[in-house]
Amino acid sequence: MLRRAVSVGLNTGLKARRSYSSVPAAQKLKVNGDRLWDDIHFTAQYSGPSPGGVTRLCADANDKLVRDWFRDQVLALGAEYKVNATGTQFAKFGGEDDSVPPIAMGSHLDTVATGGRFDGPLGVISGLEVIRSFKEQGIKTRAPLVLINWTNEEGARFFPLLGSSIVYAGQSTVEEAHASLSNDGSGITMGSELAKIGYVGDGPNTFEEFPISAHFEVHVEQATDLEKAGKPVGWVEGWQGMTWYEVVFTGEDGHATTYPMYGRRDALTGAAKLITQLETLAYAKNGYTTVTNIQSGPWGSCNIQSKTKVVFCLMHKEAEGLEDMGTDIVGTIKGIAALHGLEYDLTRPVHLLPGDFWPEAIDCVRRACGDKGIASRTGTGHDSTMTRLKCPTAMVFVRGKDGISHCAKEWSDKEDCQEGALVLGKTVLNFDAYMKEQVGKS
Amino acid sequence: MLRRAVSVGLNTGLKARRSYSSVPAAQKLKVNGDRLWDDIHFTAQYSGPSPGGVTRLCADANDKLVRDWFRDQVLALGAEYKVNATGTQFAKFGGEDDSVPPIAMGSHLDTVATGGRFDGPLGVISGLEVIRSFKEQGIKTRAPLVLINWTNEEGARFFPLLGSSIVYAGQSTVEEAHASLSNDGSGITMGSELAKIGYVGDGPNTFEEFPISAHFEVHVEQATDLEKAGKPVGWVEGWQGMTWYEVVFTGEDGHATTYPMYGRRDALTGAAKLITQLETLAYAKNGYTTVTNIQSGPWGSCNIQSKTKVVFCLMHKEAEGLEDMGTDIVGTIKGIAALHGLEYDLTRPVHLLPGDFWPEAIDCVRRACGDKGIASRTGTGHDSTMTRLKCPTAMVFVRGKDGISHCAKEWSDKEDCQEGALVLGKTVLNFDAYMKEQVGKS
Repeated sequence: MLRRAVSVGLNTGLKARRSYSSVPAAQKLKVNGDRLWDDIHFTAQYSGPSPGGVTRLCADANDKLVRDWFRDQVLALGAEYKVNATGTQFAKFGGEDDSVPPIAMGSHLDTVATGGRFDGPLGVISGLEVIRSFKEQGIKTRAPLVLINWTNEEGARFFPLLGSSIVYAGQSTVEEAHASLSNDGSGITMGSELAKIGYVGDGPNTFEEFPISAHFEVHVEQATDLEKAGKPVGWVEGWQGMTWYEVVFTGEDGHATTYPMYGRRDALTGAAKLITQLETLAYAKNGYTTVTNIQSGPWGSCNIQSKTKVVFCLMHKEAEGLEDMGTDIVGTIKGIAALHGLEYDLTRPVHLLPGDFWPEAIDCVRRACGDKGIASRTGTGHDSTMTRLKCPTAMVFVRGKDGISHCAKEWSDKEDCQEGALVLGKTVLNFDAYMKEQVGKS
Repeated sequence: MLRRAVSVGLNTGLKARRSYSSVPAAQKLKVNGDRLWDDIHFTAQYSGPSPGGVTRLCADANDKLVRDWFRDQVLALGAEYKVNATGTQFAKFGGEDDSVPPIAMGSHLDTVATGGRFDGPLGVISGLEVIRSFKEQGIKTRAPLVLINWTNEEGARFFPLLGSSIVYAGQSTVEEAHASLSNDGSGITMGSELAKIGYVGDGPNTFEEFPISAHFEVHVEQATDLEKAGKPVGWVEGWQGMTWYEVVFTGEDGHATTYPMYGRRDALTGAAKLITQLETLAYAKNGYTTVTNIQSGPWGSCNIQSKTKVVFCLMHKEAEGLEDMGTDIVGTIKGIAALHGLEYDLTRPVHLLPGDFWPEAIDCVRRACGDKGIASRTGTGHDSTMTRLKCPTAMVFVRGKDGISHCAKEWSDKEDCQEGALVLGKTVLNFDAYMKEQVGKS
């Protein structure tokens, strides 16, 4: 069975601008690289034991601490501050014309287990640095600004991923997000855990309740294109498609040491064949595949495994390739079930076709990068892949070391992080000017 | 690395008796099949949710309830009652000569998860029925008797298995047994959980502290030999060899959707290849293999799995075949580790070569079965495979349906259970007479 899935294709934006440099206000902008760097490493303390990296799972004790820290920072800067029902924090700062929807900068402060210091936090803290720099340099935009700390982008603790921006973009509901189950099989939900840390608020949950003019996100690249090109930053033009499947094989209980091999209905043996086949599929179709969770029972040391859940994702740069991989693996699952006498329950909780961000948003990032950047694409989903369903969206990539991410070894140099925050600030100013110009035209 | 293992081969007993029927006292014995049957189904209520079957894991709340029930039953029969440090319950009943070590009847009341109503409980409750019947029929043995409820025979909750009889037989220590870890990876131990339910006592822990003259155990067959032969019972002459391995593969953390396939160090993909190969190995070597536990991390929906633990067992009727399977799979593990850039930590917590019970003990069971039984062998380990290291030991098999065990569908008919308990009682009387005869000879 295939259940409700997020399935969205390419979108067509407005025509891109053709200028090749940032607006004058942006050209003078500076950001404080020391302050940015210090905040990245200061907040890394809010982590479970994770030498060199960060383990700050959605709604855990450390996530509460970093959220409280974020609230204190933005309140000190004079923000209008709200938390919504899925825990997302909004910090709004007035512009010259507060009737205009704000330009958003956002990413996430919660992380995967055994993750790095940059994936997520770099985006939020870069936005904070932009707000601080604008304030210090007396820069006032026409549109208001909003800095957003999105909840559960990773899906590391609660599945599915993009846990709050998916609601914001109208692809899910608060109720569904609250019901997201923990990946540990314990049955706890995102809603109950957010309530425990006091982060279920009455702020806006959807774009319709709280429209934004655009969304920009700084992120570590998680690949090696910038590194190979010798560039600190990149403008992100689009994303690779990705699909998550969850399959539960059900066989039959039996004695581990006495039951004959032939006639067994061993769910784990079936699951192992699927996992092995997934590796082959990636190479055969020039895509990527990863098994991200396995749970099997009954637990013990003397039972044939009668129930095994496998969660896996397929990735491909082309929509056709992604669909092809999906068709192939569903056939494999059917074959395995038949061979081993298993029942299976198959769901596809996430299905994101590859696509492109909005041309006018990309153009603002491209001009902000100037010759320090190159065009780039992301291999995965971000909160920006949700906001782009509603408004002009693009991303800024910052060079990382060896493409390593979701790992304590994830690393970006201080100068590259500073350049990323500067590009974010310039992008916001470019987009603010672009909007002004559009108003002038109408 | 291979750590300490239980490795014991065939033992040679005394010469078997050559008579073909039970002693006169045994020929008159009756047992109460209704009472036996009622107790089996009454105690099945002490279970986690497990429709039709029983889930009563070592030292859980239901295990406490059934232990309390057992204590009450044996105290009402006038037992001298003790609980040892690993929770095993001993109920001793005086004989004509209390200087003789008691003849033991034993099995286990704790079960696997999603297990049946017979595996374990049938053995203890049959022993209880024998004690009651002897009392009612005024049968007094020369040797005292002891009824034993062994702890954690299955290893279902805490690994390794045979958790208390292994200490009794001098193959492990109380400290090691207390440190046995839960299979759920939570880090809780058998010692701490037994203490929680109040079942760490000061009774005897080893054969040397509390010698027994013999050990007899009734058990469901868990295979189909009796069913095919149309016989309700069997005398068990020996057991299949079995080895448990635990392997932990360690790779490297990485991003599930962005990290290239080539160069990944994915521990779960390695584990899946091992599981697939284990199935092939069983058929190739005419043995059995089962993976009984898998745990993988980091949890989440967007991480390459960097650490995967797999626990599996190999079974073979011949020692040579078992060793051959072990050598083969260790080679496979090494190859997988090399192919996927994984480190591995391999242990062999259980290694039980196939072997035979004691001829004089088997002979007492055989004569008790008469023409209602056939010779049989067990496909797995039992507490009896530990006691036989110290004293004459043999088992009684009761016919089961379709060889199904460790499953809610496990079933033996009432009449077969009654026949099994009767055989147990006759066996005890036969062995008591055998011992008397040996004294007369010396």
